[in-house]
Amino acid sequence: MRNFDFQNPTRIIFGKNTIGRIGQEIRRGGHKLILVVAGSGSIRKNGVHDAVIDSLRKSQLTALECWGVQPNPTLAKTREIIEVAARAGVDAVLAVGGGSVIDTAKAVAAGVYVDDIWKLFEDRKPVMRALPIYTILTLSATGSEMNNYAVITREDEHKKWPIGGPALYPRVSIVDPSVQSSLPWEQTVNGAIDTISHTLEFYFQGGGETTLALDESLLRTVVSMTDRLQKNGQDYDARASLAWASTLALNGLSGTGIGDGDWATHGIEHGLSAVCPDVAHGAGLGVLFPAWILYCQDANPASFERWAKNLWNADTVEDGVAAYRAKIKAWGGAVTLKELGVKEDQIDTIATSGFGTGVNGVIKKLSIDDVRRILRSAFA
Amino acid sequence: MRNFDFQNPTRIIFGKNTIGRIGQEIRRGGHKLILVVAGSGSIRKNGVHDAVIDSLRKSQLTALECWGVQPNPTLAKTREIIEVAARAGVDAVLAVGGGSVIDTAKAVAAGVYVDDIWKLFEDRKPVMRALPIYTILTLSATGSEMNNYAVITREDEHKKWPIGGPALYPRVSIVDPSVQSSLPWEQTVNGAIDTISHTLEFYFQGGGETTLALDESLLRTVVSMTDRLQKNGQDYDARASLAWASTLALNGLSGTGIGDGDWATHGIEHGLSAVCPDVAHGAGLGVLFPAWILYCQDANPASFERWAKNLWNADTVEDGVAAYRAKIKAWGGAVTLKELGVKEDQIDTIATSGFGTGVNGVIKKLSIDDVRRILRSAFA
Repeated sequence: MRNFDFQNPTRIIFGKNTIGRIGQEIRRGGHKLILVVAGSGSIRKNGVHDAVIDSLRKSQLTALECWGVQPNPTLAKTREIIEVAARAGVDAVLAVGGGSVIDTAKAVAAGVYVDDIWKLFEDRKPVMRALPIYTILTLSATGSEMNNYAVITREDEHKKWPIGGPALYPRVSIVDPSVQSSLPWEQTVNGAIDTISHTLEFYFQGGGETTLALDESLLRTVVSMTDRLQKNGQDYDARASLAWASTLALNGLSGTGIGDGDWATHGIEHGLSAVCPDVAHGAGLGVLFPAWILYCQDANPASFERWAKNLWNADTVEDGVAAYRAKIKAWGGAVTLKELGVKEDQIDTIATSGFGTGVNGVIKKLSIDDVRRILRSAFA
Repeated sequence: MRNFDFQNPTRIIFGKNTIGRIGQEIRRGGHKLILVVAGSGSIRKNGVHDAVIDSLRKSQLTALECWGVQPNPTLAKTREIIEVAARAGVDAVLAVGGGSVIDTAKAVAAGVYVDDIWKLFEDRKPVMRALPIYTILTLSATGSEMNNYAVITREDEHKKWPIGGPALYPRVSIVDPSVQSSLPWEQTVNGAIDTISHTLEFYFQGGGETTLALDESLLRTVVSMTDRLQKNGQDYDARASLAWASTLALNGLSGTGIGDGDWATHGIEHGLSAVCPDVAHGAGLGVLFPAWILYCQDANPASFERWAKNLWNADTVEDGVAAYRAKIKAWGGAVTLKELGVKEDQIDTIATSGFGTGVNGVIKKLSIDDVRRILRSAFA
């Protein structure tokens, strides 16, 4: 078991009808002019926006609303919102949406204090200063509601890169799982695969038994709750358990005593969705993680065999991977790049972009040739 | 799954050779004169005290050392230390020891701000003001290193009562599991039983699947790591995993979505060790929890049956309890009050004291007669 530091200051408010508490939470923080960051408008249909605005109004807060954040959120949109936020001199940022909206809000919160936000991504140094961040989560997947990371895509250079640092922990995140019951099924699946993938980035490194057992409990819970939601999307307990597992999978706990995680698969996926922005992050990971496991299993056989045995009751890693792929298929997800709409001649560009994230693995340090081989093995 | 709020601000520094970081952590907090609270002197033998003093010295901090906190720590000792702390005007409190030392340090940290510390226990209101608290944990059991509770015994009235509140979270807790390798075996066992008991106080309430699965992962880990330590007390990975499970069992996570826990068994045990101060808290819980389970199983049969099945592979709650008792016996622990040295004519006093904690159960609300019956069933 490796040494570790653990601290996570974010307050989570979790459950039904909790969104109305956001106003008093922001008020308690002493802020008055709030930048609200949002996506393309689904929160106008499911009542979330109304609940937020009512709550801000009751707490006599002024809201400046910025709409239009897309999946695989872009540097261009981030810069646009930073300009608005800086000009208005907002006191705090409130993200209302999924991981893309939250990550954009985090980058904006840091961006008002620097000349060029992209420089923070290039520097790869911890972000120490940002506006206070609040979030209302509407899609459980990235874990961004309780961690200090954000991932943004610079489209012109095919770069999908992360920033992180102590200033990027949300102060308060509200998770009302009931608002996720209206999600399209494939978004639930992509969120589940994203959660599984976050856990696996740590798990395969091996480490302390407490965390490995905890990670296995998260992995099992995600699979069984997603199965339940496939039968009945209105199953609140399944939705809530999936949501909480998603938060716990990337709030620091799932890696305690293990290390900082491998993250090569995420690096490759960030290359994939930087080159093919229509590929959802979770869907990309569902294709890439099985391929990465098969390619890298010899680097830490005991961990991969344990996963196959404890999660899939399989005697070999190959059988474990087959079981995981069968589960993704049963959920209606893709298991090849071809199914995701990727063209074979894009593989080199994706490999270059993914390798360029600099996140090339710990369990097995990947060369750009390794990345190409993994992508090819995942093609069809 | 119930709604919940979760936030835990404590920073954990975990691993080998980490104690030397305490000085810089306290220095970073801006404190200069530190009250060091300690027990009867085991930290003088295992190098912990030397490491602490060296670290404080290097950070140019002044230490005021108060020794002599005993297991089942007393109000009298707490008051004695509060007087010293108040007279010296210390800036912060550093506990170096197990749960008793940490709980005393917490009560002292709150006590310097009030006329009578016991009034805080009688009032049962959240503690909102206390000196900054730092801890070096030397015995994993109570979880006090990462929660905001403290339990103190008022001997003259046979009251072993808790206080809690936001001000009682330690700012930083250092857990170096390697210093626990010199512990007497029965202290390891009592710590393991304490950890199991904390988890069970939540688990039997039932609730969200994520947390129930997480709790099961903690319960399994504690049992298997204690088994490993029985074979080899120097097994660092087992010691570290047990220590981390102990922290996680009572830092708020193990109850997320479940509720505030039942705590009747803890109430009864607090009566037991208030009347019989030689009974270690964990040892008392090892006797009382199985008896409480058998007495209360009809109040929430699905949860008790799930525990029997998932933890002990048993078809009935009775068989699960028998398996748990067999495990405690195999570890050399007591399974009856008689084995703990309790006399039959003390049962009424213990019941009165335990019932008087006011913590009389949620799964089944216990009357004082129920408490007497549970104690009698646990006698021999």
